[in-house]
Amino acid sequence: MAAKNAFYAQSGGVTAVINATACGIIETARKHPEQIGKVYAGRNGIIGALTEDLIDTSAESDADIAALKNTPAGAFGSCRYKLKSLEENRAQYERLIEVFKAHDIGYFFYNGGGDSADTCHKVSQLGEAMGYPIQAIHVPKTMDNDLPHTDCCPGFGSVAKYTAVSIREAGFDLASMALTSTKVFILEVMGRHAGWTAAAGGLAAEKEGDDPHIILFPEVVFDQEKFLARVKECVDSYGYCTIVASEGIKNAEGKFVADAGTTDAFGHTQLGGVAQTLATMIKSSLGLKYHYAIADYLMRSARHIASGTDLEQAYAVGKAAVEMAAAGKGGVMVSIVRESDEPYEWSIGEAPLDQVANVEKKMPADFITGDGFHITDACRRYLAPLIAGEHYPEYVNGLPQYVKLKNVAVPKKTGKSFEI
Amino acid sequence: MAAKNAFYAQSGGVTAVINATACGIIETARKHPEQIGKVYAGRNGIIGALTEDLIDTSAESDADIAALKNTPAGAFGSCRYKLKSLEENRAQYERLIEVFKAHDIGYFFYNGGGDSADTCHKVSQLGEAMGYPIQAIHVPKTMDNDLPHTDCCPGFGSVAKYTAVSIREAGFDLASMALTSTKVFILEVMGRHAGWTAAAGGLAAEKEGDDPHIILFPEVVFDQEKFLARVKECVDSYGYCTIVASEGIKNAEGKFVADAGTTDAFGHTQLGGVAQTLATMIKSSLGLKYHYAIADYLMRSARHIASGTDLEQAYAVGKAAVEMAAAGKGGVMVSIVRESDEPYEWSIGEAPLDQVANVEKKMPADFITGDGFHITDACRRYLAPLIAGEHYPEYVNGLPQYVKLKNVAVPKKTGKSFEI
Repeated sequence: MAAKNAFYAQSGGVTAVINATACGIIETARKHPEQIGKVYAGRNGIIGALTEDLIDTSAESDADIAALKNTPAGAFGSCRYKLKSLEENRAQYERLIEVFKAHDIGYFFYNGGGDSADTCHKVSQLGEAMGYPIQAIHVPKTMDNDLPHTDCCPGFGSVAKYTAVSIREAGFDLASMALTSTKVFILEVMGRHAGWTAAAGGLAAEKEGDDPHIILFPEVVFDQEKFLARVKECVDSYGYCTIVASEGIKNAEGKFVADAGTTDAFGHTQLGGVAQTLATMIKSSLGLKYHYAIADYLMRSARHIASGTDLEQAYAVGKAAVEMAAAGKGGVMVSIVRESDEPYEWSIGEAPLDQVANVEKKMPADFITGDGFHITDACRRYLAPLIAGEHYPEYVNGLPQYVKLKNVAVPKKTGKSFEI
Repeated sequence: MAAKNAFYAQSGGVTAVINATACGIIETARKHPEQIGKVYAGRNGIIGALTEDLIDTSAESDADIAALKNTPAGAFGSCRYKLKSLEENRAQYERLIEVFKAHDIGYFFYNGGGDSADTCHKVSQLGEAMGYPIQAIHVPKTMDNDLPHTDCCPGFGSVAKYTAVSIREAGFDLASMALTSTKVFILEVMGRHAGWTAAAGGLAAEKEGDDPHIILFPEVVFDQEKFLARVKECVDSYGYCTIVASEGIKNAEGKFVADAGTTDAFGHTQLGGVAQTLATMIKSSLGLKYHYAIADYLMRSARHIASGTDLEQAYAVGKAAVEMAAAGKGGVMVSIVRESDEPYEWSIGEAPLDQVANVEKKMPADFITGDGFHITDACRRYLAPLIAGEHYPEYVNGLPQYVKLKNVAVPKKTGKSFEI
């Protein structure tokens, strides 16, 4: 049997290490020429498949592909675009098959989170549903760490490390300044639905009084009175107060705290962000001077402080996906299996896609302390190994060297366009 | 002549490398026991001198003092507190002399920015003005880079590196996502009066199209129409737009853009920050999806990505201050003298304090491009060496190891208190 080509796409919000997964996939595919021909990447994710905008990764040198391991974000472009169900939009799937057939694609590697697992699952069923058999393998990626059936998600460990390092550093700053200046510092972190990212900040607190003093999780209903009392308590005890706040915290009415109440000069509601809302609250109720930082994309693109564990796992899931495909598998997600906490040992596993798609892994209740303001030892045991290890990019003239690929287009063959 | 003790204080906003200066001072003083006895640090800066709250640094081990080099922020506490003039508050100076006499202090090392240089200058005149001769040496520190008579200010290079690294990384993220998601990213950086910090972001742009696409300086009057046109131009050309904005930009009326027009639910003016104001402007005028990050204290405490040049210079100015003192000097600021741009060569110099105090170094006009949106080659030549080199802290369990000193108090001797 002649080798089939592979399609690879990056999906959803990118991370500091998703390109390490791409590197694992392409380098490993190059070692299996009997089973896998060329790896075609979708320009801007699955949209590249629908519009037949494919990138020929074989045009990239080995050195550039290796450099992907140390380059943040998505080298081929990603997208926020979810395929509808087969019933809702059959034309999308027919188009996919048309493009796959034209380019002799037999493997589908989809690198993303929960929504992408769902898409990957649908593609894996194209053989049965539409007579085009394809080995579809989901390769996990999400800073949100919310995929089931895997110990963790590549991309999360680096965000976690960024949060813990940043709040430790800011805490040293606050401790220096608190007597005559800023008494409260808030670090706002991404994560609308789950508190994994905020929780990771808690790793910086190794003993009583260490930063951060307070963590605000989306899993815990925000209680203004209790929160302000805790802030005051910290300032009284430690001289200052450091807070990691998830952007997704909600009040008792289920409303995002970030949306609560500011309007611009024209009377429009202003989404000011949670840090600003909390800061204003602290200033007006306790009269304390504050500062806040909003990490936003900096946290998920911070390859310069990526977690060694995360980087290793990101590469490993890419490599494993290709090895599974070469061994004839499909319809699965590559997973990370924790063998032991300390020392942290893990191996590669797999989970059937129908068990992964559309299931969200929440933080276990026993990972949050009784008062709702910090992480437990169980959480610490889970998180600690995920931020371990440093793997710095190369620097030239003081700046990290990140690769920009040539991204040569594969000549179109279908002769048809497709509206997105 | 018996060795006199030294007083050392950290002043104003702390930086990623001010403790490296403390390390340089204490390690060097330990090598000059004939001239310098103990180094007493002010707890919370000059306030520690006024309240006789001195820290005995001789109680710290050599290893802990060495670890200061890799620890951000102010290990002895800093403060925002400016001494009045001798005419306005003679009691402050009498108190200083009382404390200095009681603890046999003959050297005054003041580690700070412009205001601190002014204080240091006043202290250096105590001999003439009040009969208490003391060798006062100013040791430069400020992320604002606004001290005159020195090539740069320790603390700035690391902030500069943080900005350049962060916007490069965020730019890679944007490039990946722009087709279906975020088209504009704004990084808000500290710096109310001068654009040095924002300018540093420009170093990440090595060729046409590189991030950041736009820099907003406080030196350039903000013109909303011109700005929005440039944003649109970038999105049209590159698919997205990355912006580094100084918090201090002002409009034609001289009003901070950050203060322009949002009110909270109670009708109070809301200081939303410049990033949010710009983002709202972009959304409502151009309809583009945005994200923004606010670096705030993270940028000045980010020891994990400190500049090697900056760290080296921070240590060197501390060392030189003690060597100058041991050689009998006073009334000067230690300075950094640029010998050549490429390769960057520098030496230690000195500047008379009366020429330093209350003089602010602005960005030269020829450092900003004609359109007001980027840096020139001259600026690049000046800035590039300041961010060069990496010097990582030690990590344990994935977290940087920063020292917390014992900070043992020196027994009080004056028997008097002093109200701050």
